[in-house]
Amino acid sequence: MGVRDMTERECREVLARGNVGHLACVHDSRPYVVPIHYAFDAENIYVFSLPGQKIDWMRTNPNACIQVEETGELHLWKSVVVEGTFRELPDTAQLHDERIHAWSLLQKRSLWWEPGSSKPGTGSAETEVPIFFAISVDGISGRELLAQAAPV
Amino acid sequence: MGVRDMTERECREVLARGNVGHLACVHDSRPYVVPIHYAFDAENIYVFSLPGQKIDWMRTNPNACIQVEETGELHLWKSVVVEGTFRELPDTAQLHDERIHAWSLLQKRSLWWEPGSSKPGTGSAETEVPIFFAISVDGISGRELLAQAAPV
Repeated sequence: MGVRDMTERECREVLARGNVGHLACVHDSRPYVVPIHYAFDAENIYVFSLPGQKIDWMRTNPNACIQVEETGELHLWKSVVVEGTFRELPDTAQLHDERIHAWSLLQKRSLWWEPGSSKPGTGSAETEVPIFFAISVDGISGRELLAQAAPV
Repeated sequence: MGVRDMTERECREVLARGNVGHLACVHDSRPYVVPIHYAFDAENIYVFSLPGQKIDWMRTNPNACIQVEETGELHLWKSVVVEGTFRELPDTAQLHDERIHAWSLLQKRSLWWEPGSSKPGTGSAETEVPIFFAISVDGISGRELLAQAAPV
């Protein structure tokens, strides 16, 4: 078995195929990581969420990291890590088009509203105002586990 | 659908059943998240890794977060988040017993040596010195998505 670095194009293809990842953010030098559903449009990773810890933290510190993996046969895998910046997409006239764009991308994905849209005790996602946000792709890298050793 | 907070006992049961999670760490107010294989012994989450970014970062800032999920039928899920502290388990006489304990726990798990043990270009995990570390469980919380709305 060997591992190779993926090209940026290959990394972006993994992001485009996927719709589930893990988002990490930071507050007071402490990390927090949660699963997310997302949609990727080549420039931004769009996520829908109800208010909560990750939103509070990223509003204060917009540095974010999203990791997405693909697993294949024989326990082979690809793992892509994005360094990005949080940007909220509030329902304003200025951001109307991007918000609709994000919404349309997310609606194409099954389960796009989970798990971020559910919060304990609410019973229903309709009872709270959803938050849209984008994570820009400032840096991207990936590794692939190969069945054969990678060339040195 | 509804979401409920899990009890600490339920959270620990998810950790004990699982062996794959996502580890987040922090450097210079930036987060980093990668998949890990782990073993849990009620006090610590043990991980095996080759040297790399997550090790470098946690040696400087030991704050860590591990998230583990279980998915079930009908897209139901449980997600557990651990706030913890990194502690390296070097091969010293003082730490010998804990290191052997961690090793034996990890060896019981399939694929415990992946993906952390593989690094680009090495071709084989045998060519670099493995690092054992423990993440203490300083705080734990979890949420479960229910098919029915949670009682308010």
